[in-house]
Amino acid sequence: MKTVLVIGIGAGNPDHLTLQALKALNRVDVFFLFDKGPAKHGLNDLRRDLCTRLATERPWRLVQADNPERGPDGDSYTGAVAQLNEDKQQVLERLMDQHLADGECAGILVWGDPSLYDSTLRILQAILASGRQVFEYQVIPGISAVQALAASHKVTLNDIGGSVRISPGRQLPTQLAPGESQVVMLDAHQAFERLRGQGLFIWWGAYVGSVDEVLIAGPLDEVADEIIRVREQARMRHGWIMDTYLLRPISRR
Amino acid sequence: MKTVLVIGIGAGNPDHLTLQALKALNRVDVFFLFDKGPAKHGLNDLRRDLCTRLATERPWRLVQADNPERGPDGDSYTGAVAQLNEDKQQVLERLMDQHLADGECAGILVWGDPSLYDSTLRILQAILASGRQVFEYQVIPGISAVQALAASHKVTLNDIGGSVRISPGRQLPTQLAPGESQVVMLDAHQAFERLRGQGLFIWWGAYVGSVDEVLIAGPLDEVADEIIRVREQARMRHGWIMDTYLLRPISRR
Repeated sequence: MKTVLVIGIGAGNPDHLTLQALKALNRVDVFFLFDKGPAKHGLNDLRRDLCTRLATERPWRLVQADNPERGPDGDSYTGAVAQLNEDKQQVLERLMDQHLADGECAGILVWGDPSLYDSTLRILQAILASGRQVFEYQVIPGISAVQALAASHKVTLNDIGGSVRISPGRQLPTQLAPGESQVVMLDAHQAFERLRGQGLFIWWGAYVGSVDEVLIAGPLDEVADEIIRVREQARMRHGWIMDTYLLRPISRR
Repeated sequence: MKTVLVIGIGAGNPDHLTLQALKALNRVDVFFLFDKGPAKHGLNDLRRDLCTRLATERPWRLVQADNPERGPDGDSYTGAVAQLNEDKQQVLERLMDQHLADGECAGILVWGDPSLYDSTLRILQAILASGRQVFEYQVIPGISAVQALAASHKVTLNDIGGSVRISPGRQLPTQLAPGESQVVMLDAHQAFERLRGQGLFIWWGAYVGSVDEVLIAGPLDEVADEIIRVREQARMRHGWIMDTYLLRPISRR
């Protein structure tokens, strides 16, 4: 039997790693890394450093594969992601076929938490369903960017008795539901702009938890322009940006 | 200056502790524990074990205080919680006044993540606002029961491009919004019952991450009665229950 460990490694701070993740790293025979292009080489360097520094109890090897890119959304974002996941599935199947022997253990390092806006679990389940690979797998939770954002801003995600909605930018409603706090991840288009003028407070952060962390908090109407400016500068400097934010009425701050 | 570290310790598995939390434990001079009555002594025993086992780099002491209980909800759950938090604030102020010297560091261990359905941050901010104690504080994120649930069930919280709503039981809507996954924490009344007959799938767990973990997954209409039965048995056996669940249409399972 082959084993795959899906290991949440937190949101950019190597100290976000849990003891459970540390133990998992030290069970791995082969780490699978996916190359997402030159702009994100830094992220894979961090993964490699993590393995070198923390997986010290036994020998391991590292296999890197090109990560398929998402095609144009066309009529359907979901469709584009589903196609991307099929492409990723082929890559991972090939890795498991060629680089993971029976009785061995593979490790896939996931930024944040594998349960939130990550496709690794869906892809593994599709491989299992295809019957083309037989393996068992385990999921090790990690600190998500949402939690790192809240911790850095020292703010709770919910207010008393309230709900929290976590959405990708394109699902951000034009108004928050009463009693609800709204978290946005994966927002390529600064969707918060459409909520100006509603008395909201925003806690915004990019690269949260990492040494490059940038934080801005304030009434949305007052800080939106600053966030847009800082966000663009950071995106230019790093070649990519990962930002997250929390919105709630100022009255329930 | 006094320092308070609010340390997320994860959802019941001692290995959920992050390296950041481990370092924080080893900065603490005094741990503040809150006694929530005999039924929950086991939880404080776990906290105490954690300190003894992991805070080994320097001497520390432990101060325990009775935790105020929430009064009847009366007209307002939020009001009852706000009153409870005022009571807790008094207790914590007294601890900081009598048991934390200038230059010292206090540690408060929070189950799960301090940003999700926990009042410690709100209470510290109220103390700071009162001006009766001067201190700095830091938040160390932890693995929440939501993440432990998802990891144990090997399921993602969102589906592709979708949103996730995290609510206390009393905020569970009678219907899920399209494209939304629903997580429920703090549900004393099995609110999922009111969503029977809607083609939903449920991933349910109690004491997730701990050695007492119980998991049930299936179509809600088929497993609801089993969950109610297992939940009641577990509550009787442990004297308390902490359960969490995820709901999503079977079609988007």
